[in-house]
Amino acid sequence: MSTLNNDTLNIGVCDYPEHVPQNEWGVHAEQQRALGLTYVRLAEFSWAKIEPKDGVFDWQWLDEAVATYVAKGLKIVMCTPTATPPAWLVKKFPHILAVDAQGQTMRFGSRRHYDHASETYRKECKRITTEIAKRYGQHADVIGWQTDNELGHEGTAVSYGGASAERFPKWLEARYQTLEALNEAWGCAFWSQDYSDWSQICPPNLTAVRQPNPSQALDYQRFCSDMIDEFQQLQIEVLRALSPDRFITHNFVIFAQEFDLYKVAKNLDFVAWDSYPIGMLEFFATWESEETKTEFARTGHPDLVSFNHDLYRGIKGGKDFWIMEQQCGHANWAQYNPLPAKGAVQLWTAQAWAHGASCVTYFRWRASHMAQEIMHSGLLQQDGRADRGYQEVKDFDPSQFALEKVDAKVALLHDYNSLWAYNLQPHNKDLNYWHQFMMFYSALRELGVDVDIIHPEQLTDKQYALVVAPALTLMTDKTASILNLCAKSCPIVFGPRTAFRHDSGRVANKGQFEFIEELVGIKLANFDSLRPTLEQTIRCTNHNTDFTAKLWCESYEVNSAVATHTYTHGPMAGLAAVTQKDKVSVIGALSTGLISSVLMEALRGAGIETYRLPKGLRLSKRGNTTLVQNFNQQAVEWQGVTYPGVSFTTLE
Amino acid sequence: MSTLNNDTLNIGVCDYPEHVPQNEWGVHAEQQRALGLTYVRLAEFSWAKIEPKDGVFDWQWLDEAVATYVAKGLKIVMCTPTATPPAWLVKKFPHILAVDAQGQTMRFGSRRHYDHASETYRKECKRITTEIAKRYGQHADVIGWQTDNELGHEGTAVSYGGASAERFPKWLEARYQTLEALNEAWGCAFWSQDYSDWSQICPPNLTAVRQPNPSQALDYQRFCSDMIDEFQQLQIEVLRALSPDRFITHNFVIFAQEFDLYKVAKNLDFVAWDSYPIGMLEFFATWESEETKTEFARTGHPDLVSFNHDLYRGIKGGKDFWIMEQQCGHANWAQYNPLPAKGAVQLWTAQAWAHGASCVTYFRWRASHMAQEIMHSGLLQQDGRADRGYQEVKDFDPSQFALEKVDAKVALLHDYNSLWAYNLQPHNKDLNYWHQFMMFYSALRELGVDVDIIHPEQLTDKQYALVVAPALTLMTDKTASILNLCAKSCPIVFGPRTAFRHDSGRVANKGQFEFIEELVGIKLANFDSLRPTLEQTIRCTNHNTDFTAKLWCESYEVNSAVATHTYTHGPMAGLAAVTQKDKVSVIGALSTGLISSVLMEALRGAGIETYRLPKGLRLSKRGNTTLVQNFNQQAVEWQGVTYPGVSFTTLE
Amino acid sequence: MSTLNNDTLNIGVCDYPEHVPQNEWGVHAEQQRALGLTYVRLAEFSWAKIEPKDGVFDWQWLDEAVATYVAKGLKIVMCTPTATPPAWLVKKFPHILAVDAQGQTMRFGSRRHYDHASETYRKECKRITTEIAKRYGQHADVIGWQTDNELGHEGTAVSYGGASAERFPKWLEARYQTLEALNEAWGCAFWSQDYSDWSQICPPNLTAVRQPNPSQALDYQRFCSDMIDEFQQLQIEVLRALSPDRFITHNFVIFAQEFDLYKVAKNLDFVAWDSYPIGMLEFFATWESEETKTEFARTGHPDLVSFNHDLYRGIKGGKDFWIMEQQCGHANWAQYNPLPAKGAVQLWTAQAWAHGASCVTYFRWRASHMAQEIMHSGLLQQDGRADRGYQEVKDFDPSQFALEKVDAKVALLHDYNSLWAYNLQPHNKDLNYWHQFMMFYSALRELGVDVDIIHPEQLTDKQYALVVAPALTLMTDKTASILNLCAKSCPIVFGPRTAFRHDSGRVANKGQFEFIEELVGIKLANFDSLRPTLEQTIRCTNHNTDFTAKLWCESYEVNSAVATHTYTHGPMAGLAAVTQKDKVSVIGALSTGLISSVLMEALRGAGIETYRLPKGLRLSKRGNTTLVQNFNQQAVEWQGVTYPGVSFTTLE
Repeated sequence: MSTLNNDTLNIGVCDYPEHVPQNEWGVHAEQQRALGLTYVRLAEFSWAKIEPKDGVFDWQWLDEAVATYVAKGLKIVMCTPTATPPAWLVKKFPHILAVDAQGQTMRFGSRRHYDHASETYRKECKRITTEIAKRYGQHADVIGWQTDNELGHEGTAVSYGGASAERFPKWLEARYQTLEALNEAWGCAFWSQDYSDWSQICPPNLTAVRQPNPSQALDYQRFCSDMIDEFQQLQIEVLRALSPDRFITHNFVIFAQEFDLYKVAKNLDFVAWDSYPIGMLEFFATWESEETKTEFARTGHPDLVSFNHDLYRGIKGGKDFWIMEQQCGHANWAQYNPLPAKGAVQLWTAQAWAHGASCVTYFRWRASHMAQEIMHSGLLQQDGRADRGYQEVKDFDPSQFALEKVDAKVALLHDYNSLWAYNLQPHNKDLNYWHQFMMFYSALRELGVDVDIIHPEQLTDKQYALVVAPALTLMTDKTASILNLCAKSCPIVFGPRTAFRHDSGRVANKGQFEFIEELVGIKLANFDSLRPTLEQTIRCTNHNTDFTAKLWCESYEVNSAVATHTYTHGPMAGLAAVTQKDKVSVIGALSTGLISSVLMEALRGAGIETYRLPKGLRLSKRGNTTLVQNFNQQAVEWQGVTYPGVSFTTLE
Repeated sequence: MSTLNNDTLNIGVCDYPEHVPQNEWGVHAEQQRALGLTYVRLAEFSWAKIEPKDGVFDWQWLDEAVATYVAKGLKIVMCTPTATPPAWLVKKFPHILAVDAQGQTMRFGSRRHYDHASETYRKECKRITTEIAKRYGQHADVIGWQTDNELGHEGTAVSYGGASAERFPKWLEARYQTLEALNEAWGCAFWSQDYSDWSQICPPNLTAVRQPNPSQALDYQRFCSDMIDEFQQLQIEVLRALSPDRFITHNFVIFAQEFDLYKVAKNLDFVAWDSYPIGMLEFFATWESEETKTEFARTGHPDLVSFNHDLYRGIKGGKDFWIMEQQCGHANWAQYNPLPAKGAVQLWTAQAWAHGASCVTYFRWRASHMAQEIMHSGLLQQDGRADRGYQEVKDFDPSQFALEKVDAKVALLHDYNSLWAYNLQPHNKDLNYWHQFMMFYSALRELGVDVDIIHPEQLTDKQYALVVAPALTLMTDKTASILNLCAKSCPIVFGPRTAFRHDSGRVANKGQFEFIEELVGIKLANFDSLRPTLEQTIRCTNHNTDFTAKLWCESYEVNSAVATHTYTHGPMAGLAAVTQKDKVSVIGALSTGLISSVLMEALRGAGIETYRLPKGLRLSKRGNTTLVQNFNQQAVEWQGVTYPGVSFTTLE
Repeated sequence: MSTLNNDTLNIGVCDYPEHVPQNEWGVHAEQQRALGLTYVRLAEFSWAKIEPKDGVFDWQWLDEAVATYVAKGLKIVMCTPTATPPAWLVKKFPHILAVDAQGQTMRFGSRRHYDHASETYRKECKRITTEIAKRYGQHADVIGWQTDNELGHEGTAVSYGGASAERFPKWLEARYQTLEALNEAWGCAFWSQDYSDWSQICPPNLTAVRQPNPSQALDYQRFCSDMIDEFQQLQIEVLRALSPDRFITHNFVIFAQEFDLYKVAKNLDFVAWDSYPIGMLEFFATWESEETKTEFARTGHPDLVSFNHDLYRGIKGGKDFWIMEQQCGHANWAQYNPLPAKGAVQLWTAQAWAHGASCVTYFRWRASHMAQEIMHSGLLQQDGRADRGYQEVKDFDPSQFALEKVDAKVALLHDYNSLWAYNLQPHNKDLNYWHQFMMFYSALRELGVDVDIIHPEQLTDKQYALVVAPALTLMTDKTASILNLCAKSCPIVFGPRTAFRHDSGRVANKGQFEFIEELVGIKLANFDSLRPTLEQTIRCTNHNTDFTAKLWCESYEVNSAVATHTYTHGPMAGLAAVTQKDKVSVIGALSTGLISSVLMEALRGAGIETYRLPKGLRLSKRGNTTLVQNFNQQAVEWQGVTYPGVSFTTLE
């Protein structure tokens, strides 16, 4: 089997020959190769073309397409087409359809309309995966596989009826063994929720009063995550068997949060994600201000993009990842979809590399003439003329980017269980886990510091100079013992709501910080959920500097710790907002300035160099190369050098 | 049977021993007694613990809990656990579940998921009530009962299918006897809505065009109210029979409006309500400005809280009421849930007393480790440390508050039928009945005037110096004759939309004011529904003072009345905005200043002293004691005295 | 058969004798005649009164009502009552009910709760239409018919289940003949949507991921339009047969857009529409600023009203239309429903005439005492007193308004297929077809220019001096050939998104402008969807004037055209925003100033006089009379003449 160049960045493209007359395939493949692309992703949503009727296969078109691309020198990344079961399959097995939170069964006509728990659909997916793997699994130029597409995208991770509703009690039985254990874990004593038979348990939707039991909802999230894991695993097994020596990956989505990526990615060779920086800011980052959304409307915000890079690099413990879909013009799915600034496509590509990408795949080759993505651009316009992205790719030399290691000295701890627990009861409608997490991430990026984003359990794999846990609200015995061990050799900074809940979603008997109480030396005094018009002032005990917090504040009783910052007014006046015990700090208040200040202090203590970067200017280091990125549309001066608007510069 | 102290305020607490290991029960009871609490509310949501399986009872835990509390000197308020049918019951009788306005059947996992009209569920409730009443009904230290919990809370008063849909036609048949009468009452001539068979009649949801028939919707509200009344009455009857000489009450909610409290409370000994001042402002008072929501974010607004006190005191004709759940820290259910200001718990308790509460029950003893209310505080923290409320209660002496009479000279007339009729067709999306009502209530409170809030029919029970009817939009023969009689001895001020509709929800043949036309001496000229950016100016005929009205303005043709205020501009220029005939005034415009001015005039005429109270400072008189309450966080000076922030002061 | 006066404007009224005691009918009819009304619309929602039980008819009341009106000299417009099937019918045939987008079946209790595709309901409608037509079809004073009422009103054009879901595949089969053709037209290659059996095809709702296939959705819109057409056609046929020599019309709604009015109106004698200027601005014109909504809150905006006049005049190729319901006081269905300014009823009536109305029918005679429209006014108050509108009508002389021709020299091209295609994928959440269209329409009105709004195919019927196509996004062969022909004799101005899609909803293989590429001489460079905080600056190449665009910008590659305006900054800097080739211009940016400037230039070139009208002042010419309309509440001076607030003036 041939492979891609392993030394420097590869670029490729997503293509859909089935959308284009066959006589154009050769032309396109040739253009692609001429542009420096080395591979093409194929067959992503092609089930109905491969198997137009139940059991009737048409391989000819795909055989010819593959042959055409290969003939021009491109490698192939093949997809399992399971994100889009054909109409005949849905009509034959209507019970595979997912059910939404309002109790409605989904209809055919879009994508991802299935319930991952459906044994029937799994069987069908295994069947089609087997067929396609038999056909192309050992093709010399098929270098690897993408499973399905964007698992869980747009709320499709969860089905509230059908196969999922049926399987959930069984999954719970396997998890808890006894109903006594489940009733205890979920706190069923509350509101008379005790179950006396497994069959009584439902998905957590359509409850009469707004909130479902958060432990039930947390377990439902875990259950759905496991269903997705099982769903994909069936395909991985088939591919391993029938397509040896090829990689298997999956293209995850921006800020994916509906399943546990550490689990779901476990048996993949590496992870990929789909990067759309503009929609990421406009659509996903609900917490960003109008001002930020305006300033970075044509580039996306550097920290949002790099956060996803760092997250996905960390999912597999620092292994190089792919961008499986890279925005290369305007997208179509946000509320507003402005044209990218000139240079943005190159900037995004370089940034992806700097954060650990080995391959960047542009989405898509030619803009679609049809269906849901008519308004989405590609490298070519709908009539085949080169679009803006094409020109940028043409002027871009990927061979300058060597595939060295990203070696960050700071780790940010992330965990999907904490994310789910946080979001199930945010206690402030403007808050969520990512929002809080990003405040810490951006503070570090503004200081020019590279970070790994890892699961706490990965702490045992690498020694860091500083560990930051922005929102580790769910604490387990295991995580606590890792943290206790880690703290012996490394400073740690915790954010608000740390260790507030146990694995069950319940609060520990000893309240917040149980399991790590010795480490932090404090107890919760109170938390304070602030409406947007309220704020708190926090004073640094040593320096008399004041910081303003919004959204969320916690105060602490200090036992064996010291208060480094205290609240100056209001019901928590005089109480600790930030504490320190040895090299372990806890920040209780959501204040950009405060977080930055405490982190800077910690970084200094850890011997890590920091900078004061201008807004929108960022540094990312890979190997010995530092990539300076200017996401502003205007030029910015920093350290005596002027960086043009929307540009990257490499420093050795 | 022993009882509570009858001379001064009692304080107690809601406790849930079933949430706590048994070895802590004694400790908690002892702490409670030491804190000055004299009673504890128990067993509220405990059905699944009492009857873990169909017909299998476990009384041991509750017997022991009761014994433990009693041993420490606490009295017991016992609850019927019917707000939370257990999982096995719901599984056995799925048809008891309520159906929402979108036609979806509710699921188990929260509370109040049942249809009050369900005969099956009523039978089950009667059965469990009988069992618990047999067990504890004659226990020496069980002093009384709470039925169910927060009837109708969060929209659960209404089910749009199942038993309710089935029962509605029968209820209508009993009400109207003939379809001719119903067709006439509902105005079915409109849009071809005439019914020719009772079975054709549905709940008023899922209509193709937005609005259902308002008379149908009004009757559906009455029907649901009656269903709740019947539902509770079954429990009252069981408790009366099996637990003689104990009180029976119910804990109603803030601004409860889904059923007729005068009816539903009729067979209770007294009413109780659940007071959460902070969420009341943030969540319920949708009409309050961002400024007000910010200033009073940590205390709630005094008028919102006292309005509910006065309303609930009036429900049973001025009888002392209970606070069955008193916020004593942060709550968890509003969009934002800030920490209360220091002193707020004491201030709320004192205010409750001043408005007629005999008992204030803090919610809850220890914060929950589990389930839906993890983020809600108690007197104790989750790990058992004293929380802020605990300290405030400790420093509070209830014995200083004697249980004398609240003797208000001004009555505000309130009626749930008017509320429903108003809200079904508000004609301005920013308006509702409470909003309009509160403008009059707050005007009186700002003037330092104590009020009773009563049903018009209660006017025959007491002589007032002034009667104000802020939003009595639905007029009946009976109410009209009471008002006509009342006006002979007492000035009356009416608000906008007065007497616009009849009991059926239809407009009277003679238009607005039918039945009281002689009394007011005017006819409607026009009403004017103002978008937020529009306003009207109104001039006082005598004083040339101008007032600004927003939201809603009515103009009148004056017949035997005089216009005291007129519109200066716009389509109603020159027409009457306020009229007077003898001692009866009608205010047609929603203007805070105008309402205050007209009421001040009327109070003067009635010989009632008024004050100009600073914002957030309020006076409430009980017996001979006036309680000055400062809800501001900063100190306020008034009449030469400085009142500290968040404080109360008693004046004799 | 007698008819109305054919020389000058007629005024009439909508009346509902079935809402009023019979002894008032004669009084009302007499008052109507005295007021100058010449006809009355009757029986609109009267099915349940006519046929109170299945097959049991009661004609007596309507016979007597008709006789009473006729006796006083009024002509009758009779309605088919099919907008409101009675309760017994719905109970008998529950499968006639429509299903909403959430999958819920509608309930009885409002109106329009049926599926237009239902053969059962069609049969019933044919039956009742036959009955009423037999009864009154040849009555000497019945001058014509209104079918049903406000077809498609409030989203009732579309049913997502039942009969529509069943019929849709058959309709598609008739349209496409083969599944291959359908799969190609819908671009089913995308997301594996190919159908292998007609029965697999569903309505485009409840798709798992947000967007349905836009071609499927476009065809569903066409299908629903055809269902409405068929539905009405059955009634037209019955009426033609049984009521010869009477007109048949329908009262369409404001900004109707759910079906193709050119088709649905084809077999009507003329069209009518229901004009509510105030709610039109508050409720429908979501794109208007708060400032505009405030300034014109009591009159509506002149351009919104006249746009609908011009649109409906154009539907039947310039034939006089009726206002079948004219607001004559406050309405009840917008978020806010302010009182009209004094003079507004006369102003609206005169404006309607000036734009081609031959009859204006006030809605309604007496305000309803009952049901959904209690809060809606009439000419009489609920108690029978004259309301404001009555006085205005009394002071209004319709005989001054001769029924001459409106002879506009400028045509605006409109097409429902473009509207649907535009709105299915607006690519900017603040944009829709009407919004874009109104920017061009208002620009012309501000310049004092009268316009026809016509379908492109109507271009062959009349020679214009200028043709403007504001949003002709869907292009067919046929339309293109008409435009190519038209351009030989007439300048054309195109707006953004012109010719972006083909009839199938797909983008042409050659991209935007296919079919008219030679005409415009350009290709799309890029489009740019701007969030509200972003804008683009555009410079006129000749004059160095700058314009600001918002919302949407397109840039073009000029081939045989010239760029008259270019973007100055941002990703499209230097590219053409407006192009010209011979007398064909394309405006690519949504800028009020730019559109006005380009149109003014084009008007000058076409020899059409333009003015700079003050805000809210408008000119409309009918025959030789120009009606000056001042929609401002204050007086406005123009060309040395002062026009009083809310007034009209005729200039010869």
